Amino acid sequence: MCDNEREPAVDDLERLRHRIDDIDERLVDLLAERRRTVDEVVACKRARRLPVYHPAREEDLLSRRRRQAAVQGLDPDFLEELFRLILRQSRRTQSRRLTAEGILPGGRVLLVGGGGGMGTFLRRLFAAAGYEVRVLETGDWEHAGELGAGIDAAIVAVPIGRTEEVIRRLAPLLPEKAVLADITSIKERPVAAMLAAHGGPVVGLHPLFGPGLASMDKQVVAVTPGRDDEGCRWLLDQIAAWGAILMTTTPAEHDRLMAVVQGLRHFATFAFGRFLWRRGVDISRTLEFSSPIYRLELGMVGRLFAQDPELYADIILADDERRRMLGEYADAVREAAETLVAGDGDAFRREFREIAEWFGAFSEQALRESGYLIDKLIERF
Amino acid sequence: MCDNEREPAVDDLERLRHRIDDIDERLVDLLAERRRTVDEVVACKRARRLPVYHPAREEDLLSRRRRQAAVQGLDPDFLEELFRLILRQSRRTQSRRLTAEGILPGGRVLLVGGGGGMGTFLRRLFAAAGYEVRVLETGDWEHAGELGAGIDAAIVAVPIGRTEEVIRRLAPLLPEKAVLADITSIKERPVAAMLAAHGGPVVGLHPLFGPGLASMDKQVVAVTPGRDDEGCRWLLDQIAAWGAILMTTTPAEHDRLMAVVQGLRHFATFAFGRFLWRRGVDISRTLEFSSPIYRLELGMVGRLFAQDPELYADIILADDERRRMLGEYADAVREAAETLVAGDGDAFRREFREIAEWFGAFSEQALRESGYLIDKLIERF
Repeated sequence: MCDNEREPAVDDLERLRHRIDDIDERLVDLLAERRRTVDEVVACKRARRLPVYHPAREEDLLSRRRRQAAVQGLDPDFLEELFRLILRQSRRTQSRRLTAEGILPGGRVLLVGGGGGMGTFLRRLFAAAGYEVRVLETGDWEHAGELGAGIDAAIVAVPIGRTEEVIRRLAPLLPEKAVLADITSIKERPVAAMLAAHGGPVVGLHPLFGPGLASMDKQVVAVTPGRDDEGCRWLLDQIAAWGAILMTTTPAEHDRLMAVVQGLRHFATFAFGRFLWRRGVDISRTLEFSSPIYRLELGMVGRLFAQDPELYADIILADDERRRMLGEYADAVREAAETLVAGDGDAFRREFREIAEWFGAFSEQALRESGYLIDKLIERF
Repeated sequence: MCDNEREPAVDDLERLRHRIDDIDERLVDLLAERRRTVDEVVACKRARRLPVYHPAREEDLLSRRRRQAAVQGLDPDFLEELFRLILRQSRRTQSRRLTAEGILPGGRVLLVGGGGGMGTFLRRLFAAAGYEVRVLETGDWEHAGELGAGIDAAIVAVPIGRTEEVIRRLAPLLPEKAVLADITSIKERPVAAMLAAHGGPVVGLHPLFGPGLASMDKQVVAVTPGRDDEGCRWLLDQIAAWGAILMTTTPAEHDRLMAVVQGLRHFATFAFGRFLWRRGVDISRTLEFSSPIYRLELGMVGRLFAQDPELYADIILADDERRRMLGEYADAVREAAETLVAGDGDAFRREFREIAEWFGAFSEQALRESGYLIDKLIERF
């Protein structure tokens, strides 16, 4: 089909490319047709109360496609991977439709600061699960009494600096039995404020993810119980029903861990990006000359700067302990640099080995996990 | 299509299932047709010595499929993932065909330091491509004359500290026409040493990846030409034939970029891990309470400590410029920390926005890329 001798040969390539484009378009058409047919199957099954997911049929389907692939000279493993992707997407589409059912349908939830990123996210989830969602924003305090009347839970989702004040103002308007919760990224002070201001069920929550996600599936939510675990149960069950992993701890341990996980880590990333900026490093040129791992690491830096500075200021400056730690971190960086600036390779190697031992099994696991991700990065970008 | 009232309703389901089977069969037929067409494209490109991989066309193809997906009510992300899988498989099939054939089969390659990680990696690739591979290790210098006789290329793969000395010792043993290359992670001094010691073709190489990979596919190799590009051609073609992306630059720019990409980045990661160790942070507990992004970031740290300290000492301490930069970096971290320890949120936000603007489009891309990886991490671990 491609004649090497003849000119302009570029036409052959163009023709072949158009043929591929045409095939790809038909592939997408077929996938859309498949999706519509699956929708009919699901409607049919639900009408008859049959289970939607049917693992045996999936395996059977995969076996037949593998056989067809082999006959056609295609790699059966590739075909299986492709069809698993199609089946997974199919299940996702269906389950998205089914999660609409909540733990306490008809329950009334008041989101204080419901207009922020996480507030909007929760609002969408609660509404989809059949709750009556009310929102209290800065300008709504004159109607706060009505908004608070008869609610089952109030969730405070305002910036850290205003959390305690909002809690004090809000609590007197709530029914005694209502759950009072907050989603601030520190927990000691907010939980103490909630316990002091409200006599009913209290729980501190900290969703460890940003509001940009489609769902809570497999995301971690830290839970620091305050009072009346039984009274708080339905709210935690609801969050678990959305697929989140609930990790329970005390407010004090939470804050200690988060100083590292959030404050320090974000600061280190910020400081690295800031240095590149100050030195005027040519980012795109470094990316051209980089391994996937550098791309991934620089991606973590770039990612931070694509997000909201308010959020990071809030997290990094959350409390005195975090701020103090930054100073200690800067001292430690200076100390490490001095050894190396002096060219003391032996001291570096010695410390390196000691730290490696301390990291222990986590290092091997990290190497494996990041190796897997690097493969994914190479495949995709 | 599904009549809830009528019995036996199972027929409806059967009919729908047959329709899905039929669609799936057509999907596989189309994929086989696609594969045949791509084979023609590749034959065409090879006949005309055009590069097989064409990233821009892939991105364009993906954009069009995403748009078609949206029109058809399918999830564009799903479609993109599906087509990336198809494209990857397509590349794999092609590169499997190409790697068997060497550019200069029967050519003789001398690996100096062939017992190291990267030496072993290259040895395997050259041998598989039909080259005669010889290895010169520390103890082999008495036979070095025989080893160097009649070779087509000598590749120096020894630690940075010994590279120049080895080059001076090796060069007089090489035929005038042999290519002399090194794979050190700095380029100015080794290339200067090679030019001074050898009168024939000279090229500096820096593979930007570790020796643990299965192939060079899509990995970057930095190339800093020294002398006689034509004479070096076959070696570079061979590396490109293995799927590597060759990025050409001057030794000076290479070293400037690598001071950041390798020296600074690895140091920052080292310093962070060292601080966690010094503070005795409970790594596994922080992981329980962490978002996938923290897990990924901490994984980058753990990963470093799972590797060879010699390698990192070599990279971080490679030259004076790198060492100087570490001192400047430590100063910058201190400066950033001071603003925050003082609690100056406004200064932080102002700088954050300025840096975000400087990062520009890269930030958005990084957010997208890392979002994709986080999904992969959640799916798998």
